[in-house]
Amino acid sequence: MSGATERLRAAGLHLPEPPRPLGRYVPAVAASGLLFLSGMLPLRDGEPLLTGRLGQELDPAAGREAARAAALNALAVADAGTGLDSVARVVRLAVHIACDPGFGDHAAVADGASEVFDTAFAPTRHSRLVFGSAALPAGMPVELEVVLEVGAATSPGQL
Amino acid sequence: MSGATERLRAAGLHLPEPPRPLGRYVPAVAASGLLFLSGMLPLRDGEPLLTGRLGQELDPAAGREAARAAALNALAVADAGTGLDSVARVVRLAVHIACDPGFGDHAAVADGASEVFDTAFAPTRHSRLVFGSAALPAGMPVELEVVLEVGAATSPGQL
Amino acid sequence: MSGATERLRAAGLHLPEPPRPLGRYVPAVAASGLLFLSGMLPLRDGEPLLTGRLGQELDPAAGREAARAAALNALAVADAGTGLDSVARVVRLAVHIACDPGFGDHAAVADGASEVFDTAFAPTRHSRLVFGSAALPAGMPVELEVVLEVGAATSPGQL
Repeated sequence: MSGATERLRAAGLHLPEPPRPLGRYVPAVAASGLLFLSGMLPLRDGEPLLTGRLGQELDPAAGREAARAAALNALAVADAGTGLDSVARVVRLAVHIACDPGFGDHAAVADGASEVFDTAFAPTRHSRLVFGSAALPAGMPVELEVVLEVGAATSPGQL
Repeated sequence: MSGATERLRAAGLHLPEPPRPLGRYVPAVAASGLLFLSGMLPLRDGEPLLTGRLGQELDPAAGREAARAAALNALAVADAGTGLDSVARVVRLAVHIACDPGFGDHAAVADGASEVFDTAFAPTRHSRLVFGSAALPAGMPVELEVVLEVGAATSPGQL
Repeated sequence: MSGATERLRAAGLHLPEPPRPLGRYVPAVAASGLLFLSGMLPLRDGEPLLTGRLGQELDPAAGREAARAAALNALAVADAGTGLDSVARVVRLAVHIACDPGFGDHAAVADGASEVFDTAFAPTRHSRLVFGSAALPAGMPVELEVVLEVGAATSPGQL
C-alpha cells in the first residue's frame, strides 16, 4: 500500500530505465533472502551523466548528484527484478568515490545516495561504507554497492 | 559462558563507546542471519585517532594500531546491537588501507584487526580481503568492512 | 552429473592448488547458505604470477589473464571447501584493479574472471562490480571478491 513505489511517487522521484550490464554479468542476483546488485553507476541511457574525480574536476555537490543518479538506477534494477515493493530495505550501501589522495569529504557525496534510499524505504535506514577509488569504470566519479533485503515486509533488522 | 565478552576481558581488552554514524545511516543492519556493519574507522570519541597514508606518513606498525582500534569499534557496535555474545563469528573482514601506489605490505596492517577478532571469537577464523584506497573519510588510514554471523552458537562454517 | 567440475574439464580448464592464506585468516567461510571467499589473487604456488598496474606496466590483456588466474584460484578454494559441485553459482563478483587514475577499461579486465565463472556455472550469471585500487597486496594487479551460493542445486536467483 504505502510501499517504496508510492513513496517515490509522492516525493516526485521517477525511476529511469534500468542500466544494461557493461560486460558478462547480470544486473542483480537473489540468494538467501538478499538481492545483490551489480555496481551502480551514474549512467543514463547507457552514457555517463558525468565523469571526473572528486577533489579535482568535481566538487562534493557534483559527486552528490552522481550518487543520487546511481541510487535511482539501483532502485530501477530492483524494480525490474523482484519488483520494488517486495524489497523491505537496503541492508548495505557502499559508496566508492573516484578521488584525489587529498579528498576527505566522503560523507557529503554518499548522502546523495542515502537520501534516495531514505525516501524509498523510510523510516528504515541502511548500513554504509565509503571508500576512495583510484579510478572507476569509464572515468565515472561514483559507483555503488547495494545489497537489499527481499521478501520480508517488515524487518526488525535495524540496530 | 565462555563467550566473546569473557574472552575479551580475559585478554585485557575493553570495548570503547560505539562510534556514531557520520551521515544518514545506521551503525549496523541485521538480515538473513548476518549482521552487516557500517564502515569501521579508527575513531575514538568521534575524533580520528590518527590520519595519514601507509607508505607515506605512516608505517605498517601505525596502520596496524589503526586497524586494531577500528576492530574494537566493530565489536562495540555489535555489542550495542545484538549483544556480542549472540555473535557466532566474523564471516568476512575487508580491510581498506589508504596508501601510496608503491605500498604492498597490506597483510601486516590487516593482521591488527584479525588479532582482535581472533581473541573475541577464537578459535574460529574469518575470511579476509585487503585493498588499497586512494583516500578514506577524513584522511583516516584504515576502514573495515565487517559481516558477522548472529544467532548461531556454533557454526560449521569454517573451511 | 553435468556439474561445474564436469564443465571445467570439458573446457580444458584445470584447477590449481588452492592458495594458502597470507595472514591470520581462512580461505573461505560459509554462513546463511553463502560461501564468502577471502581475497583471490593471481598467485600460483604462493608466488605472484605478475605484478604491476593497469594503465602503466600492464595492458588490459595482461590484466585479463591475472583475473582469470584469480578466478581459477577461487574455484579451487570452493572445491577444497564445500566441493565445487555443491556450489550453485557465483552470486557476487567484485574485481579490484590496481591502476593509474587515468585507467577506464575495467570491464575488459573483469571479463577474464567472468569467463571462467561462466564456464563453470553456465548458464547462470553473476552480479559484478569493478573498482580501481591504489595498490593491492604485494604489487599484484587484480584481487577478486567472490560470494557463492552453496547447497542449492537450482536457484531462481538471476534477474
